[in-house]
Amino acid sequence: MCRWLAYHGSPVLLTDVLYTPAHSLIDQSLHSELGAEPTNGDGFGIGWYDDAPVPGVFRSIEPAWNDANLRELAAHVRSPLFFAHIRAAIGSAVQQTNCHPFRHGRWLWMHNGFIDGYAMLRRDLILAVDEALFPEIKGQADSEVLFYLALTFGLEEDPPEAVARAIGFVEACGHRRGVQHPFQGTIATTDGTSLWAFRYASDGHARSLFFSRDIRAIRQLAPDRKNLLEVSDNTRLVVSEPIGDLPAAWVEMPEASYGVLGEGGERLLPFSPKVPEPAR
Amino acid sequence: MCRWLAYHGSPVLLTDVLYTPAHSLIDQSLHSELGAEPTNGDGFGIGWYDDAPVPGVFRSIEPAWNDANLRELAAHVRSPLFFAHIRAAIGSAVQQTNCHPFRHGRWLWMHNGFIDGYAMLRRDLILAVDEALFPEIKGQADSEVLFYLALTFGLEEDPPEAVARAIGFVEACGHRRGVQHPFQGTIATTDGTSLWAFRYASDGHARSLFFSRDIRAIRQLAPDRKNLLEVSDNTRLVVSEPIGDLPAAWVEMPEASYGVLGEGGERLLPFSPKVPEPAR
Amino acid sequence: MCRWLAYHGSPVLLTDVLYTPAHSLIDQSLHSELGAEPTNGDGFGIGWYDDAPVPGVFRSIEPAWNDANLRELAAHVRSPLFFAHIRAAIGSAVQQTNCHPFRHGRWLWMHNGFIDGYAMLRRDLILAVDEALFPEIKGQADSEVLFYLALTFGLEEDPPEAVARAIGFVEACGHRRGVQHPFQGTIATTDGTSLWAFRYASDGHARSLFFSRDIRAIRQLAPDRKNLLEVSDNTRLVVSEPIGDLPAAWVEMPEASYGVLGEGGERLLPFSPKVPEPAR
Amino acid sequence: MCRWLAYHGSPVLLTDVLYTPAHSLIDQSLHSELGAEPTNGDGFGIGWYDDAPVPGVFRSIEPAWNDANLRELAAHVRSPLFFAHIRAAIGSAVQQTNCHPFRHGRWLWMHNGFIDGYAMLRRDLILAVDEALFPEIKGQADSEVLFYLALTFGLEEDPPEAVARAIGFVEACGHRRGVQHPFQGTIATTDGTSLWAFRYASDGHARSLFFSRDIRAIRQLAPDRKNLLEVSDNTRLVVSEPIGDLPAAWVEMPEASYGVLGEGGERLLPFSPKVPEPAR
Repeated sequence: MCRWLAYHGSPVLLTDVLYTPAHSLIDQSLHSELGAEPTNGDGFGIGWYDDAPVPGVFRSIEPAWNDANLRELAAHVRSPLFFAHIRAAIGSAVQQTNCHPFRHGRWLWMHNGFIDGYAMLRRDLILAVDEALFPEIKGQADSEVLFYLALTFGLEEDPPEAVARAIGFVEACGHRRGVQHPFQGTIATTDGTSLWAFRYASDGHARSLFFSRDIRAIRQLAPDRKNLLEVSDNTRLVVSEPIGDLPAAWVEMPEASYGVLGEGGERLLPFSPKVPEPAR
Repeated sequence: MCRWLAYHGSPVLLTDVLYTPAHSLIDQSLHSELGAEPTNGDGFGIGWYDDAPVPGVFRSIEPAWNDANLRELAAHVRSPLFFAHIRAAIGSAVQQTNCHPFRHGRWLWMHNGFIDGYAMLRRDLILAVDEALFPEIKGQADSEVLFYLALTFGLEEDPPEAVARAIGFVEACGHRRGVQHPFQGTIATTDGTSLWAFRYASDGHARSLFFSRDIRAIRQLAPDRKNLLEVSDNTRLVVSEPIGDLPAAWVEMPEASYGVLGEGGERLLPFSPKVPEPAR
Repeated sequence: MCRWLAYHGSPVLLTDVLYTPAHSLIDQSLHSELGAEPTNGDGFGIGWYDDAPVPGVFRSIEPAWNDANLRELAAHVRSPLFFAHIRAAIGSAVQQTNCHPFRHGRWLWMHNGFIDGYAMLRRDLILAVDEALFPEIKGQADSEVLFYLALTFGLEEDPPEAVARAIGFVEACGHRRGVQHPFQGTIATTDGTSLWAFRYASDGHARSLFFSRDIRAIRQLAPDRKNLLEVSDNTRLVVSEPIGDLPAAWVEMPEASYGVLGEGGERLLPFSPKVPEPAR
Repeated sequence: MCRWLAYHGSPVLLTDVLYTPAHSLIDQSLHSELGAEPTNGDGFGIGWYDDAPVPGVFRSIEPAWNDANLRELAAHVRSPLFFAHIRAAIGSAVQQTNCHPFRHGRWLWMHNGFIDGYAMLRRDLILAVDEALFPEIKGQADSEVLFYLALTFGLEEDPPEAVARAIGFVEACGHRRGVQHPFQGTIATTDGTSLWAFRYASDGHARSLFFSRDIRAIRQLAPDRKNLLEVSDNTRLVVSEPIGDLPAAWVEMPEASYGVLGEGGERLLPFSPKVPEPAR
């Protein structure tokens, strides 16, 4: 449906991650291999952190593969933590307000997948969003509503718990309306310091998700790559499908799991949705 | 905020109404004289009837004044009943789903004005929309929600009653949240046969609205205008501000009134909002 | 590189040709099977004739597959002769002025293919365009320059001769600059009455081109198709790759040939470029 | 016709110059006071220098006043030297390739004004562009051709001489074709170190151009402005019309003059076009 990439490590020029590698994310906008569709041409977005109080977000409805402005930005923006997302729309309009990543304060959110039966469920879902957050919903995408549900359920305090409750709530709403497998997908979210990545589907067959191995191990795989020497030891990428030409550099994230990257090191843990208590 | 035009009469080429007259609607996108703003450059839309089962709608986020496609369409589309709208956005994003006219089945709707305090009221308002209609809301504009409220309150059966109840509901919601003058504007709606135009503001100072005089009277004002001979006697225009160079051809619609054009002739009647009964 | 479709026959709603058939042109914007690329997402255009003095042209930089306005137009425009083109850009910018079809007076022109070495040849080519036509060149596409070369060489008087001279001139320029195979592609052009379609490549391997069989023969292939009864006996489609689900309805146009559809009946003839005499 | 701004000084966040001041350039896109038109809504562009080998360029066909991406970028990009341009198109299409600033290597160029009779002169002008530079011309704007003429005449070696020869050449071509006053406008160009600004019109009435006074003098005018303390003493702005609320901070550049800002200090000198020798 979509493809995404999250970078967490020492500051790099975006172009070195988004354009330079073989089978880059930008290539995947035209020729994805693991996606539900080979083409992800219904807009794109990037979000990046620097020393400004909130992350920057650049979103466009053009296909990423020939967007001149994205190419310019990527050649000039340097960041230690950024998200990139290319979209294959299913149902909702191709407009900037439906492009990922979505932002709330210092938080970014992106998603590959869908809420099944969303047209039918949308009303129930947005009603559960905290009234104070409600005016921030600017588009029609299921992924944006999921973000505001997660915020409603405490994303800023406990991300894994909040995402578990948001997806649990989606499943509960879906089941009540006769949708068998309400949720599908992978999610990345960050507060600008730590990064959480989730892989889960109600039917047990979630969209693919990969993280890069420890950079020291990758350096041994390809000792002649200078760019691997330039990034810090704790640099990691999380991607919908591998980029570059070193398949051994990637580990697939298991079904129903989530990973955390951040100051407290790295963890990979099981994930399961929680049916939230009756809302506020 | 915006400018609009509604045409009801014998079939004409859109360009003869939208581009040819002095101070045309397209000119008003750059140089409006009576609008709250001289520039209405945040997208536009047209809706027209022909022999297809539903009216056509063409909407764009470009300023109307230099949109090559609008110029092409206007030179090729002929219609006995069409709407045109140019937008000056206040708050909601510049995207096609926020451009007027909005459509439901054979109905079209457009609005110049705003719901005051909309960010605060939006949740209450969309909750009142009929659940079966809810999935059709595609954008974020206050005008679109107002359309779906009117449909919820019976627009297809009794337009003046439904609009009165929709605006009454908006006023009730607004007052409950401390908004003094919740509604402002002019509205046009049609089922493809009759045309209803409303002018009303909660504070008693509604945006301007004009309708053209009886075409036979206009012909006497300007006996040398050939194009006036080509249209039928029952042709009328309703506009936010007059077009052309015959000021005497226009009559301002009074505050708190609405007009109907259609098979049963023409009427001008007083309008006042109705507080709807507690919703279903 | 691109895909195109030309319709010549009794008036039809564009949607019945562009959207309804299996593997329609709109589908091919996302999933072309015979094109150099599966994706043709770098803009599109349609051109159609009605009773206006010049054909209408609607062009957009959005991918055709999700363009709401194209869908609307196609559902409302009825024409006996129209062109549709979906673009996969190679080199020149994604902008409306590079989208096909191109128009001059009552003439339309579209092209699938390229001029090899175009960046190097462009200056020579545009210098050969008639000075009176020169200001009409609005974009940067090789296909547009080829159109103006053909007009310079007499397209309006003798289309096959003018196209032969235009391609001959391109080949001569290319060879002079060391380009081995300067021209590749298929071309459609029309004056609103007749339609000419060309298939030729300097290297003898031109992009695919198909025309539909005599409609009476197709009716025998599929006697239960009602839509085949509705179009006139002389209706023909010319397409980059077949649409619909009746492979037997299509004949591939041979290499180095051109076809004519029009009032004087139909012809299929050999095509070869002519080196033009030194220009005026 | 257009409005522009050039900043040269100590690094600042673009937003502090483009959005924060009263009557900012972004405001001028909707409400210019000194321009030929109040609205400059036909696209915009920014170009900025950082530590990358070539300056970044971001251009869009949307009106600047509501472009969400421009707002984001301006809040995250910090630069000691940048250009910003808002466009009111006259004749050429609204497309990114016609938006300023134009770039060649490390050089940027922007222009407010026009070449009179451009449709007639374009062919003569582009023929005079160095053949090696010719393929870099991507759009149709007169301002872009003027840039490539200046490059042809030695912009990279001696900017004032090259601009004088380029404008002289435009005037000579124009006069030969019966155009009385071929050139109008103001120009800014930079190599990333120095900045040159020109004001000249063939008829002696050039578009307005202002530069900011010495920052130490401005600090005395408004001793309570903290932001004036944060920029270096050699910081200067050159603008089509003043921004901010300190009219005394601005000096109008005289007719037929040019200014230079750079490492060798600042100069204001007379400007007059030179008819170039017959081209190579």
